[in-house]
Amino acid sequence: SHVPFSPRRYSEEEMLKRSKEFYELLNQRRSVRFISDEAVPREVIDNIIRAAGTSPSGAHTEPWTFVVVEDPEVKHKIREIIEEEEEINYRKRMGDKWVTDLKKLKTNWVKEYLDSAPYLILIFKQVYGVLSDNRKKTHYYNEISVSIACGILLAALQNAGLVTVTTTPLNCGPRLRLLLDRPINEKLLMLLPVGYASKDATVPDLQRKPLEDIMVVT
Amino acid sequence: SHVPFSPRRYSEEEMLKRSKEFYELLNQRRSVRFISDEAVPREVIDNIIRAAGTSPSGAHTEPWTFVVVEDPEVKHKIREIIEEEEEINYRKRMGDKWVTDLKKLKTNWVKEYLDSAPYLILIFKQVYGVLSDNRKKTHYYNEISVSIACGILLAALQNAGLVTVTTTPLNCGPRLRLLLDRPINEKLLMLLPVGYASKDATVPDLQRKPLEDIMVVT
Ligand SMILES: Cc1cc2nc3c(=O)[nH]c(=O)nc-3n(C[C@H](O)[C@H](O)[C@H](O)COP(=O)(O)O)c2cc1C
Ligand SMILES: Cc1cc2nc3c(=O)[nH]c(=O)nc-3n(C[C@H](O)[C@H](O)[C@H](O)COP(=O)(O)O)c2cc1C
Repeated sequence: SHVPFSPRRYSEEEMLKRSKEFYELLNQRRSVRFISDEAVPREVIDNIIRAAGTSPSGAHTEPWTFVVVEDPEVKHKIREIIEEEEEINYRKRMGDKWVTDLKKLKTNWVKEYLDSAPYLILIFKQVYGVLSDNRKKTHYYNEISVSIACGILLAALQNAGLVTVTTTPLNCGPRLRLLLDRPINEKLLMLLPVGYASKDATVPDLQRKPLEDIMVVT
Repeated sequence: SHVPFSPRRYSEEEMLKRSKEFYELLNQRRSVRFISDEAVPREVIDNIIRAAGTSPSGAHTEPWTFVVVEDPEVKHKIREIIEEEEEINYRKRMGDKWVTDLKKLKTNWVKEYLDSAPYLILIFKQVYGVLSDNRKKTHYYNEISVSIACGILLAALQNAGLVTVTTTPLNCGPRLRLLLDRPINEKLLMLLPVGYASKDATVPDLQRKPLEDIMVVT
C-alpha cells in the first residue's frame, strides 16, 4: 500500500545556506591512514550505521551487512590477512602501472591502522538473499546499493568528526569472510578503519576537481 | 608530497547528538516518484554536486560526470527514450520474477517526473580517463567510487529538503549518452530527477531493517 508523503521543506535562503554548509563540511573530509587508538563511544558508531541503513537499494532489498570489529585480537588477525595479501598484491598482482599510480599516495602493504583504530567496519554486500524456505532472492544492483550506503556512512562519519580511509582489500574477501563467520552469500566490498586522526597524521597534498570539471549543464 | 592533517573534533556529547540528528534527518528520506514542477535555485544544485565531488575515489581518479538537465525539451527527449526502453524492459527483458518483486513499489514505465522535475541529474561513470597524449588512464573501482559519490549526493539533497528517486534506466545508457553528447568513456550509472515532492505525493509503505539486522559486532 502507498501512503501520503510530504517531506520537510526549507525556504530558498535556508536551502542555500544548508547546501553550502554541507558542502563545506564534506569538503574537509580526507582519507586518513594514521588513526589514533583513542576510544570512541559505540553509540556513535551505532548511529552512523543506522544512517547508512537508510540508503536506497534496488527493489528495497537492503543488501548490506556492517561488521563492526572492536576486539583487538580479531583486528590483529585481520591485519595479518590483509598485509599478507597486500604484499603479494603490490609485488605481483597489481602490475607496475597500478603501483606507480599509487605512488603519490605513498600507500603500501603495512597498515598499522588495522591495529590502532578502535573500530574496523567491514561492509559486506549480500549478492543474493535467502528466503525462509531457503530459496534464493535476487538482489538487484547489490554492489551499487551497498556503495551508495557506504557514501552515506562516510558522510555520517565526517559529520561526527571521525576519520576513515575507504579501502577495498584486494583478494582478502574470502579469508575475511571466513574469519568473521559470514555466510556464503556475503562478499566483502569495503573495509573502513574508524577513529580519530593520530596527532601526527598527514595526508597526500591532493586537489579536487573544480565544479566546472565535473558538472555539465544542459 | 604529504601535509599535516588535524581534522575538527567534537566532544563525545556533541558526537552523540550530531550522529543522532544526522540519522534522523536521513531516515526521513524516501524515494519520491511524484515531483512538482516548482523551480529550485540552481545554486543549490551546484552546492549539492560540489558535495558529491568531495567523495573518495580509487587512486583519486574522480571518475564522475554530473549532467544537469534543465531544458524542458531535453527532459522530454530523455523521457521518450526511457519510457520506450522501460516498456520493453517490463514487458520482455526483466522477466516475471523481477516485475513481481517490483509490484509492491507500483513502479511501471510511465515516468511523468522526467518532465515535471526541474532538474534531471544524470550521473556518468568514466570507465577510463583520457590523458593529454590520448593514452587511456585506468580508473580503478570506478563504479564503486561513483556510487559512493551518489550516496553523498543523496545525503546532500536530503539535507537541503529536496527529493529524488535513485534510478538505473536499464538499456537506456547508450541512447542517453548520445543525446547528451557525452564521450565514449562515459557510461550512464544513475538518473536522479530532483525537485520538491508534489502536493499529492505518495510512497510505498516500506519499513527499514532495524540496526540488529544490519550490524554485527565482534
Ligand atoms: C541502485 C538502485 C537502483 C534503483 N532503481 C530504481 C528504478 O529504476 N526505478 C525506481 O522507481 N526506483 C529505483 N530505485 C529505488 C528503490 O526502489 C528504493 O530505494 C527502495 O524501494 C527503498 O525505498 P526508499 O528509497 O524510499 O527507502 C533504485 C534504488 C537503487 C539503490
Ligand atoms: C573504491 C575505493 C577504493 C579505495 N581503495 C583504497 C585502498 O585500498 N587503500 C587506500 O589506502 N586508499 C583507498 N582508497 C582511498 C583513495 O585513495 C582516496 O579516496 C583518494 O586518494 C582521494 O583522497 P581523499 O579521500 O582524501 O579525498 C579507495 C577509495 C575508493 C573510493
